Amino acid sequence: MISSRTRVLAIIGDPIGHSITPRIQNYALQHIGADILNIACLVAPSELEAAIRGARALGLLGLMVTIPHKEAVLRLCDELDDSARLIGVANLLHFTPQGKTIGYSSDGWAAVKSLEEEGTSVKDQRIVILGGGGSARSLALTFAAHGAHEIVLLNRTVERARTIAEEVEALNIPARAETLNASTCRRELVQADILVNATSIGMSPQADESPIEPQALKAARPGLTVYDIVYNPLETRLLRETRAAGLKGVDGLGMLIYTNVFAVEKCAGLKISAATMREEALRALGA
Amino acid sequence: MISSRTRVLAIIGDPIGHSITPRIQNYALQHIGADILNIACLVAPSELEAAIRGARALGLLGLMVTIPHKEAVLRLCDELDDSARLIGVANLLHFTPQGKTIGYSSDGWAAVKSLEEEGTSVKDQRIVILGGGGSARSLALTFAAHGAHEIVLLNRTVERARTIAEEVEALNIPARAETLNASTCRRELVQADILVNATSIGMSPQADESPIEPQALKAARPGLTVYDIVYNPLETRLLRETRAAGLKGVDGLGMLIYTNVFAVEKCAGLKISAATMREEALRALGA
Repeated sequence: MISSRTRVLAIIGDPIGHSITPRIQNYALQHIGADILNIACLVAPSELEAAIRGARALGLLGLMVTIPHKEAVLRLCDELDDSARLIGVANLLHFTPQGKTIGYSSDGWAAVKSLEEEGTSVKDQRIVILGGGGSARSLALTFAAHGAHEIVLLNRTVERARTIAEEVEALNIPARAETLNASTCRRELVQADILVNATSIGMSPQADESPIEPQALKAARPGLTVYDIVYNPLETRLLRETRAAGLKGVDGLGMLIYTNVFAVEKCAGLKISAATMREEALRALGA
Repeated sequence: MISSRTRVLAIIGDPIGHSITPRIQNYALQHIGADILNIACLVAPSELEAAIRGARALGLLGLMVTIPHKEAVLRLCDELDDSARLIGVANLLHFTPQGKTIGYSSDGWAAVKSLEEEGTSVKDQRIVILGGGGSARSLALTFAAHGAHEIVLLNRTVERARTIAEEVEALNIPARAETLNASTCRRELVQADILVNATSIGMSPQADESPIEPQALKAARPGLTVYDIVYNPLETRLLRETRAAGLKGVDGLGMLIYTNVFAVEKCAGLKISAATMREEALRALGA
């Protein structure tokens, strides 16, 4: 029951009406009897600074941050955690009891946790990442920081992938960028341990699309794990074809779930259950 | 269920942890199936401006305002409703879809509604108000604006009562101020229609106190209605002695309830049930 002592965490973005975070986080919070509530707030870019200062003044525990604010919030933090400094974005602002705003980036960590949950570590692995946007960059840099053996970025526009590869190399992890096409894909998957789809290809309503040809999966290394950051639908065409090829597939829901685990742990010092959130997420997604 | 489309109303104050507003308002909102939530935020005076700008930037529907912010919020409004202009305080800020902050004062209106609910109109009535603080002033001015016949303010410190009486007279309603003691009290109650306790005397933990002697109630006009703004305990010593004297007593819970009715109607255009809130309030107060 919500009372005047209930503490509040919010997620801000624009748009935000599609987010399942309030639903799954509140379900998991209730499950452990925490007197904490998650609400979603639509915040336009022009209102970002007022929203953040205001959230702190209103005594919120913190703000989860999504598109399009992840970069803009950096200059509004008093301190940045290593994770936020590494990626140059923050998806969580923790308002400390001492009045400081600390920025964290947990997307990469959440991806690592999702993979580990399915028995796949990124350490010493050859990782192929499809994409050249913010997600590809977050994951590439985080996987590098977690000791990946090599990171290959495949993107239709190779220039953007190349920039990320250079950033990965600056962390002393070998990295390359290639143009994403049937032949580069097939060649790279023959020796890869993990393939990550960090594009939005395959996301509803374009659920009949896949970023790669199924032939590349059939020719891939038998131990390959395919990780798709898309979670709507939960089983993308890429994951369906992955499983059909006898390979392990990991869906994108865990990433969303673990950013919630991270937020509640940093802001409230409480552990919420990933499994409990997953149950509710499946209901929310009608899966 | 809270989702990313749930809209939020907050109540701000310092302290705020004692407020039963979130509990009773959420109960009534749920009862009508409204996808709206009320939360309480502890806001220090130094944070007031950031909190208000931030609440608007975060897309909240509005802010209910309690002690100590009711006067300070005035200068942070874009417009003031007549009710706020009359009293010089606001206990509700509505953030309009057009981006304006409009201040309202509903305490007086809520008191009028509470009395009406028990069959007592303030129009053409001789009203005696005990107290000289903000509540006494709000009620005196609102009752005057609602056409009271005469308002008499009784306070231990007569100067504060006199200032209010002068403000009431400026509204062309006869008003007087007297020192509150056994003899003035007895004299005024002989001809009064309504007696209002607008002091905090009798509030828990001083529940064994009453602002007046029971003898004055025994000698009062038989049609007297006694209205106590204190609601904790629900039946104050004053109301107990009122009923023992065969007079009608009205407790202070309705005022709290109707400020909630007012807030939801102004900010969300929805009607919540006063009776439903009262049920939950009685549970919250353990009454």
